[in-house]
Amino acid sequence: MDFLPVPEINRNLSHPDEGSLQKEKSINSPLIGTGGKKREMNIMNHATDFSKLHASDLLPARDGEKWTEQFLLAVVDVLLNYIKKTFDGKSKVLDFHYPHQLLEGLEGFNLELSDQPESLEQILVDCRDTLKYGVKTGHPCFFNQLSSGLDIVGLAGEWLTATANTNMFTFEIAPVFIIMEEIILKKMYKIVGWGESEADGIFCPGGSISNLYSLLVARYKYFPEVKTKGMMALPNIVLFVSEHSHYSLEKASAVLGIGTDNVIAVKCDERGKMIPSDLEAKILEARKEGHFPLYVCATAGTTVYGAFDPLAEVADICEKYGLWMHVDAAWGGGLLMSKKHSFKLCGIERANSITWNPHKMMGVPLQCSTILIQEKGLLYACNQLSAGYLFQPDKQYDVAYDTGDKTIQCGRHVDIFKLWLIWKAKGTCGFELQINKCLDLAQYLYRNLKTRENFQLVLDAEPEHTNVCFWYIPQSLQKIQNKTELSRKLHQVAPKIKSQLMEEGTTMVSYQPYGDKVNFFRMVLSNPATKKSDIDFLIEEIERLGKDL
Amino acid sequence: MDFLPVPEINRNLSHPDEGSLQKEKSINSPLIGTGGKKREMNIMNHATDFSKLHASDLLPARDGEKWTEQFLLAVVDVLLNYIKKTFDGKSKVLDFHYPHQLLEGLEGFNLELSDQPESLEQILVDCRDTLKYGVKTGHPCFFNQLSSGLDIVGLAGEWLTATANTNMFTFEIAPVFIIMEEIILKKMYKIVGWGESEADGIFCPGGSISNLYSLLVARYKYFPEVKTKGMMALPNIVLFVSEHSHYSLEKASAVLGIGTDNVIAVKCDERGKMIPSDLEAKILEARKEGHFPLYVCATAGTTVYGAFDPLAEVADICEKYGLWMHVDAAWGGGLLMSKKHSFKLCGIERANSITWNPHKMMGVPLQCSTILIQEKGLLYACNQLSAGYLFQPDKQYDVAYDTGDKTIQCGRHVDIFKLWLIWKAKGTCGFELQINKCLDLAQYLYRNLKTRENFQLVLDAEPEHTNVCFWYIPQSLQKIQNKTELSRKLHQVAPKIKSQLMEEGTTMVSYQPYGDKVNFFRMVLSNPATKKSDIDFLIEEIERLGKDL
Repeated sequence: MDFLPVPEINRNLSHPDEGSLQKEKSINSPLIGTGGKKREMNIMNHATDFSKLHASDLLPARDGEKWTEQFLLAVVDVLLNYIKKTFDGKSKVLDFHYPHQLLEGLEGFNLELSDQPESLEQILVDCRDTLKYGVKTGHPCFFNQLSSGLDIVGLAGEWLTATANTNMFTFEIAPVFIIMEEIILKKMYKIVGWGESEADGIFCPGGSISNLYSLLVARYKYFPEVKTKGMMALPNIVLFVSEHSHYSLEKASAVLGIGTDNVIAVKCDERGKMIPSDLEAKILEARKEGHFPLYVCATAGTTVYGAFDPLAEVADICEKYGLWMHVDAAWGGGLLMSKKHSFKLCGIERANSITWNPHKMMGVPLQCSTILIQEKGLLYACNQLSAGYLFQPDKQYDVAYDTGDKTIQCGRHVDIFKLWLIWKAKGTCGFELQINKCLDLAQYLYRNLKTRENFQLVLDAEPEHTNVCFWYIPQSLQKIQNKTELSRKLHQVAPKIKSQLMEEGTTMVSYQPYGDKVNFFRMVLSNPATKKSDIDFLIEEIERLGKDL
Repeated sequence: MDFLPVPEINRNLSHPDEGSLQKEKSINSPLIGTGGKKREMNIMNHATDFSKLHASDLLPARDGEKWTEQFLLAVVDVLLNYIKKTFDGKSKVLDFHYPHQLLEGLEGFNLELSDQPESLEQILVDCRDTLKYGVKTGHPCFFNQLSSGLDIVGLAGEWLTATANTNMFTFEIAPVFIIMEEIILKKMYKIVGWGESEADGIFCPGGSISNLYSLLVARYKYFPEVKTKGMMALPNIVLFVSEHSHYSLEKASAVLGIGTDNVIAVKCDERGKMIPSDLEAKILEARKEGHFPLYVCATAGTTVYGAFDPLAEVADICEKYGLWMHVDAAWGGGLLMSKKHSFKLCGIERANSITWNPHKMMGVPLQCSTILIQEKGLLYACNQLSAGYLFQPDKQYDVAYDTGDKTIQCGRHVDIFKLWLIWKAKGTCGFELQINKCLDLAQYLYRNLKTRENFQLVLDAEPEHTNVCFWYIPQSLQKIQNKTELSRKLHQVAPKIKSQLMEEGTTMVSYQPYGDKVNFFRMVLSNPATKKSDIDFLIEEIERLGKDL
C-alpha cells in the first residue's frame, strides 16, 4: 500500500539528540525521474496505467466509473501515506523551500498551468508533491497556530462534505446539514448557559468574520436605521476592546465604516486580562466627549497570553451603562467543554454575543467557527433582504429553515458536518478528555521551563489556557549588562531559532514581540496527538539551535 | 465494493414516462435493521468489525494506523457509492423529507448528539444516511443553482485540501497553496485583460463577500480616511447597480455602513441589461442632490436572466464621471474561458474590480470565489493592520507572501488547490469545452421550448448565458381570459410543480417571481454531466406534473 516512499529523517523522540538530526536526503526517488516525464507507480497494487488517462476519462465520461474509482483510490493512497507520516513523530514537520524555489519549480513539481491537459499520473504526482512541500499541521510537533492536529473523524467528515458539494443557503439543497446546524447550535447555546429556543447563531468563515457579525448585529440592535440609512444617521459610536484582544475587532470597525479610531483600547493587567476599572473609566470618558459607547469585546483566551478577561465584572459594567457585551471565545470557548476548566469563562452566559471556533481548541478541521447571539431574530432582521430568486416564500416546507438570509454571505460552505460527526464519534466527554490533556501538557511545559536556566517565562504564573510564553536566553546574552543591548540581541534570538527550526523542519512554534516585550516564543497546544516527549523535544531543539547564538 | 445497496427508482432516461416513475421503495435494507443497534456491513471486503471500534482507536492512538486506514477506506467506499449514484441518471436527485422528520429522526438516522461516543460502525452508517437524505448536486438533472456538478479531479483536490488542513494567512504554513494562488490569480488577470504584475486579488468565501470587497476597496480608494475615521468623515456616498444585479450589493452596503437607501437602482431593458443612459441620468441626479457618486456595479451574467450589461458603455460613463467600475462576473466570468463566448464580457478589462466565481460556470467544487482588483496594493492598504503575532516582519522569506493581511478574515480556507488541480488536469482548453457544451445545451432547451404550446418563454431571444426562463401553462389556464385571474393562477403553477418534483426526487429546478412577472422557472446549466436527454426529461417531468393543474 506504499506510494513512492520518501526517505525520512531519523528522529528518536524519546532521546532526541543532535546526532540523530540530519538534513533530509534528496527526495527524488529513482521512480520519479525528472521533469515529470517517465514515472512508474505502484498504487493500490493494481495495474492501472494513469499515464494514459486524463480527466476526460473520468465520470461523467461513458465507462468513467471504473477509472473514477481507481483514480480516487489512488488519491486516497497518497493521502493515507501522508496521514501516516503526519502522526509519525520521526517524520519532519515541513520541508522548507523559499517562494522563488516553488515558483521556479522543484524537480518534477511545476506549479505553472498550461492550456493542455496533464495525465492523471501527473495529477497524482502533483498531489503527492503538494503535500510533500507543505506543512504537516497535524504533526505532534507543530505548535505554530491555535488550530493544529488532524482529527481523523473530522477528516472523514470533510471528505464527505466535499463529496456532497452543497451550500448552506436553503434547506432545499442542504436539508440534513441545515438540521445538523440547528441541533449543534442549540447544544452550544445550552453549554454557554442560554435558553436553547431563545438564542440564534450561524457558522461562518472564521473567527474574524464571527467578530464582525457581533459588531454588525450590536450596531443594528441599537440603531436599526443603519441598515437603510448607513452610519450617517448615527451618533459617533465607539467600542471597547482590551489591549490584548484580537485585531479582527479593529478590522471589523474599518469594514463596517466605524473606523479604527473609534475602537478604544482598555488596559490589561500583567497577565493580559482586561482591567474593569479602566473599562468603566474609558466608557465615562467617551460619554463625556460626546461619543456613544456601544459595545465591549471581552476575550476568553487571548491570542498571545491565553488570558481570560473577568467576564462577570465586564458584564456588570455593560449592564450598568447599557452596552452590548461580546465575548470573543474563539480560542477559549473550547474550555466550556471541560468541567475542570469551564469556570474560567464564568459570566459568559451574560454576553449578548459570543464567538466560538470549534476549529481551534476542539480540534475540528478548518474552518469551523460560530457566532452566537443571545437574542433570537436579530441576526435575521439585521441581514435579511429577501431576494425572491433564492428565498421563495411559497415552498412546501417551513422556510425559516432557509438560513441564508441570516448571513452576510450568499453561498455558505458546509462547515457543520465534520463537527457533527466528531461529536457523534467522541461524545461530549471526548472533547473534554482531549482538552484537559492539552491543558495538562501546557502545565507540564510551564513547570519544565521554570526549572531551566536558559529559559525565562514571560508570565510567572500557571497557564490558564495552553499558551506558554517564554524567551530563550543563550549563554552569550546572559553576561550582557546593558539593557538596551540585551533587548536588541534577545529580540533577534527567536526569529533566528525559528528560521532554523523551519529549515531543518523539525518543529514549528510561533514568536512575536508584544507591547514593550521583545520577541518571545508563544507555545500553544491544541493537538491531541502531542505527547510530553514532543514538548521535551521542542525545548531541546530550541536549546540545540540557540545555545551558540 | 458495494456498500449497502439502496433500491433505486426505475427511470428510463431516453423514454421517461409516468409508468416508470415510482416512489422509491422503503430504504431500510435488512442489513441495517432499526434503531442503529444491530447491523452487518460489508465494506472493502475486509473483516474489520467497526462496531467494536471508536474514534479513540484511531490515530493518534497507539496502533491506530491500521484502524485509521480501514476506517477511512470504509468512508471512501461510502463516498464512491454515492459518487456512482450521483452520475447515474437512473437514481433520484433527492429523497425529500420535511425538517420535522429529520429532527425527529428517520429510521436508523438520529441527528441528536450524546455525551458518550458512538461506534465507528454507527459513524459509517451516519455518513451513508447523511448522503442518502441530502441532495445530489452533481446529478445530471440537478438544475437548481448556478453551481452544480461534481468534478472528480476537483473532488480529489478537496480531499487533499482537507487532509492538509491548513490556513492561507501565511506562506509559513501554506507555502505551496500561497504560490498556487499567486499563479492562478495572475492567470486570471491575464484572461481578464490586465497586466499580470499590476493587479491584485484574493480568493474569498463566496461571491457576496467578493462583491463586498469591491465596495470596501472602492470606498478606501476615494476616501482612505474611512479606515480610521469611519463613514462620519465622508460625504454621502451613493452607488449604482442595475435592477437585475445580485442582492449582495445591497447587503454589502448595509454591512459597510453605507445603507441600502444609498444603493440606486438603474433600469434594465427587457433582456435585463443595464440601460447606460439611465445610469448617466441617475449619476447626474445624485450629484444634483448633493450625493457623492462613488461606484457602479455592472453585471456579467445576472442571476435570473443571465444578462450581460454593456460593459464598455458603462466603462465610458464611469470614466467620464470618475466612478469606480466593478463587474460582478460571479456567474458570467466563466465565459472568459471560451473563445466563442468571451465577447459577451467585452469591456471587462476596463473594470477597477471584478468578482469571478470559479465554483459556478467553471464547475469547481464549492467554495471558490475571487475578487480581482486592477490597482496593486489597494487591497493590502485597505485591510492591513499588521498584527505582530501573526505577521512578523523578521522572517527568513519575503513576507509579501503572507497574504493574510490583505483580507478581512484572519484564518482563510484553502480554496485554491481544487481549482489548480482541475486546471492542471483539464488545461485551459478543458474549461472551454465544458462551458461551450453548457451553452449549447441552453440553446437546445430554448429552441425546444419555443416549439411547445404549453410553455412560454419569459424572453423570446436566444440565451446569452445558460439561463432559460419560462412558464409552464397548463391546459386549464389557457382558457382564462381575465388577466388578473390568470396571473394569480399561473403564479401558483411553478411552486406546485417544484414541490412535486422534489417530493418525487426526479429533478430540481428553480423558480421565482421577478419584477412584474409571476413565478416562472429559471433553468440554468453548469454541470458537464448534463445531456440533451436530461433536458428532455425535465421538460417532460414538468408537463407530467403540471398538465392537470
